[in-house]
Amino acid sequence: MSQDRIELEIKLSEALEEGRIEELIPVLKKLPTIEVAEILSEISEERMLETLPYFTNEQQAQIYSDLDFDLQYLLFQKLDPWKFAGIFEEVPSAVRADFFQEISRDEQILLLPYLTKLVRKDVIELSKYPPETAGGIMSTDFATVLEEMSCSEAIAKVRTDAPSKRMIYYIYVVDKNMTLKGFITLKDLILAEPYQKVAEILHSEYVEASVEEDRESVAQKIEKYDLVAIPVVNYRNQLVGIVTHDEAIEVIRAEQTEDMEKFMGIVPDKEDMGYMETSSWQHFKKRAAWLVSLAAFGILSGIIIHQFETTLEKMIILALYIPMLADAGGNSGSQAATVVIRALSLGQIKVLDWVKIVWKEARIAVLLGISLGVLAFGKVMFLSWDAATPDSYGLPFIAFVIALAISLQVLTATVIGALFPLLVKSLGGDPAVAASPAITTVVDVTGLLIYFGVAIALLGL
Amino acid sequence: MSQDRIELEIKLSEALEEGRIEELIPVLKKLPTIEVAEILSEISEERMLETLPYFTNEQQAQIYSDLDFDLQYLLFQKLDPWKFAGIFEEVPSAVRADFFQEISRDEQILLLPYLTKLVRKDVIELSKYPPETAGGIMSTDFATVLEEMSCSEAIAKVRTDAPSKRMIYYIYVVDKNMTLKGFITLKDLILAEPYQKVAEILHSEYVEASVEEDRESVAQKIEKYDLVAIPVVNYRNQLVGIVTHDEAIEVIRAEQTEDMEKFMGIVPDKEDMGYMETSSWQHFKKRAAWLVSLAAFGILSGIIIHQFETTLEKMIILALYIPMLADAGGNSGSQAATVVIRALSLGQIKVLDWVKIVWKEARIAVLLGISLGVLAFGKVMFLSWDAATPDSYGLPFIAFVIALAISLQVLTATVIGALFPLLVKSLGGDPAVAASPAITTVVDVTGLLIYFGVAIALLGL
Repeated sequence: MSQDRIELEIKLSEALEEGRIEELIPVLKKLPTIEVAEILSEISEERMLETLPYFTNEQQAQIYSDLDFDLQYLLFQKLDPWKFAGIFEEVPSAVRADFFQEISRDEQILLLPYLTKLVRKDVIELSKYPPETAGGIMSTDFATVLEEMSCSEAIAKVRTDAPSKRMIYYIYVVDKNMTLKGFITLKDLILAEPYQKVAEILHSEYVEASVEEDRESVAQKIEKYDLVAIPVVNYRNQLVGIVTHDEAIEVIRAEQTEDMEKFMGIVPDKEDMGYMETSSWQHFKKRAAWLVSLAAFGILSGIIIHQFETTLEKMIILALYIPMLADAGGNSGSQAATVVIRALSLGQIKVLDWVKIVWKEARIAVLLGISLGVLAFGKVMFLSWDAATPDSYGLPFIAFVIALAISLQVLTATVIGALFPLLVKSLGGDPAVAASPAITTVVDVTGLLIYFGVAIALLGL
Repeated sequence: MSQDRIELEIKLSEALEEGRIEELIPVLKKLPTIEVAEILSEISEERMLETLPYFTNEQQAQIYSDLDFDLQYLLFQKLDPWKFAGIFEEVPSAVRADFFQEISRDEQILLLPYLTKLVRKDVIELSKYPPETAGGIMSTDFATVLEEMSCSEAIAKVRTDAPSKRMIYYIYVVDKNMTLKGFITLKDLILAEPYQKVAEILHSEYVEASVEEDRESVAQKIEKYDLVAIPVVNYRNQLVGIVTHDEAIEVIRAEQTEDMEKFMGIVPDKEDMGYMETSSWQHFKKRAAWLVSLAAFGILSGIIIHQFETTLEKMIILALYIPMLADAGGNSGSQAATVVIRALSLGQIKVLDWVKIVWKEARIAVLLGISLGVLAFGKVMFLSWDAATPDSYGLPFIAFVIALAISLQVLTATVIGALFPLLVKSLGGDPAVAASPAITTVVDVTGLLIYFGVAIALLGL
């Protein structure tokens, strides 16, 4: 993160590449595994395969969890299957399932026989859920106790279970059928008297997620209730997994990137590849879809301008201010859309509030419209002071007409920008697709109609 | 979160408003405090003040933590000072300090005498740090043990400390001067043998934050290393606080909103007020600054068009395609900027990579430029089929000239869009201010120069 650590990582990977593996192992073993994974990602495949065996299976499993899929897959291909399975068994269940989902059916069948029965079952079970659901991001590394246990029995059970469970700060209370009854925290357990029953200290009111729930909604619950983990249950209310706080952060980041990309008319990736790793061709495809369809849709603006070609010929000064009109509309519309999309995703407003929102935006838009209109008037007077104007109207009147059109354009563009995401959401879509380029293109059309309409009405062209 | 819970909250707040407080208290006491806070925010001030005393001080403190500042301030004003202090003492230290920072100097002096000495010191200490630093978001509710303690002694100390400490899952190991030596997890402690020394199970390699570190960098560390909390130290390496995972999520959300707003040329709020709570005038001011300055800067485009007024008069068809030029440039430039800003903030690329980035964007831009150029050619042929063209050139050649200009515009706009955030960042600014409206305005200027340049060169106007 800090400059020092980045430099340390670079030095270590260079030294490893030179083959000074044995002398570096003690240093590497002291680093957080994410940093070891970053260093190993920098060096050649051969050196990585030479370095890994110096770590225990458990350490290798942690490093594996922090590697990108490409390198995980490389290990799967290059290591002896028994060796790979030994590491794979120690990997957190959610990471294991993600890998299993990515490899082909044939590769899955090759891997399964090397796994212990328990892990085999777990991997198959977890891989069933689509990645955008609670099931797809949950892990099965949670600790459970029974309601009728005493606190000392519960502590004993947690101690036995703990080495294989990553998250024991919340301990889930279940019955024999794994039906979720509530939870206790490890803190509760430490504070309780040994003879107390678990049932006495149980939190029976709790927040849970269902296994097919959207992952974004799960992350929002973790955020809202400040949870370290949330239990995931099936339709029978049986505990099937947990989603932890670090998964929630990952989901929030991923959804944010997706929102921003959608907003700029970029088709989001299914996998979250880095900027540099994504090929130019891939980047092109992600961006072109919208750009090209918007440019095609822009033909509407073209048709409108053509309709008014004779108007423009009669008063060429009108043509000069079309770019200003387009920019003012596009910018104010995009701003309104950004604000509304953000407020929607933070839960500050609802689609049903649309009348209130439009009313608010309309008031803001009047202020913005007046400001930009005044500015436009000044611009026309300044830029076109020597323009040839028809005898019937002086320049000030023409400037007024252009300014009025710009004001009306800002007013409508702001309201359209605010309404668009609400409309998309009410139709069941993601409001972020009411993208800035889309709004720009739409308000170009309305803007031109307003512009020529006002000009014809007031200037009698 | 779910529809059911929202409906439940609405029903409860209506019933409370009708005065059915006593019968509802048992229901409210079972809800998570964030939901109680939401319900109380919906009802009238009088009803809220009537309802609160039914909860214990500790419960009221939790509800208080989840209220917006306005309502916290209301309680501060309306409650008896002793009563308020009793609640305030139980509030998590980070929330307490935030409130203290918001109120006026006079109000601070009114509040302090009612607090116990320890809390008074804590509040003053924590309020010293700017809100965008680790110090500004840290809490002092952490547990510590000494290296030389045995594990059984350590557990005894944690049990004693726990009721007043919210986070005991990581226990920090310090010496008598509070110098940080490392940490142990509660899980380690549960798994260790009672006679083992803390020093034996201590993690001496750990990730820490310094008290003046930027809060975004702290959140990134929590995210990268999957931490529940990170210790915050001063320049003497003394432990002064911790930042927890839920604070990290809040920071990530806040920075994201700020980025998106900046990107759309909206001046971010210092306080994070909701959409509806922000007045129209406030909204106007946030958006107008950029809109107006960009429109003013747009005068440059105006001057350029004016320079070429005679060119336009000679061939009016050129004027018709200026909006298409502006849209293609603005959209492709904004897309490139979005992608680069996002990759920068996710740490996927660095400013020093700028040559590689520009090279990549240039290749993407060639593909985009060709696509949009071909489309532009088709559009001109379709829209202007009956246009009067000079004898010397047929329509296809004019369409080719316009298409070529559009291709070059997309090419330069994409590269400018990618370079702009890198430039801002290298100058020490936030790349997100390389906002989409700003890029649109800049590429309008370059686009017009390209457009008229190509037209004059090839059409000899």
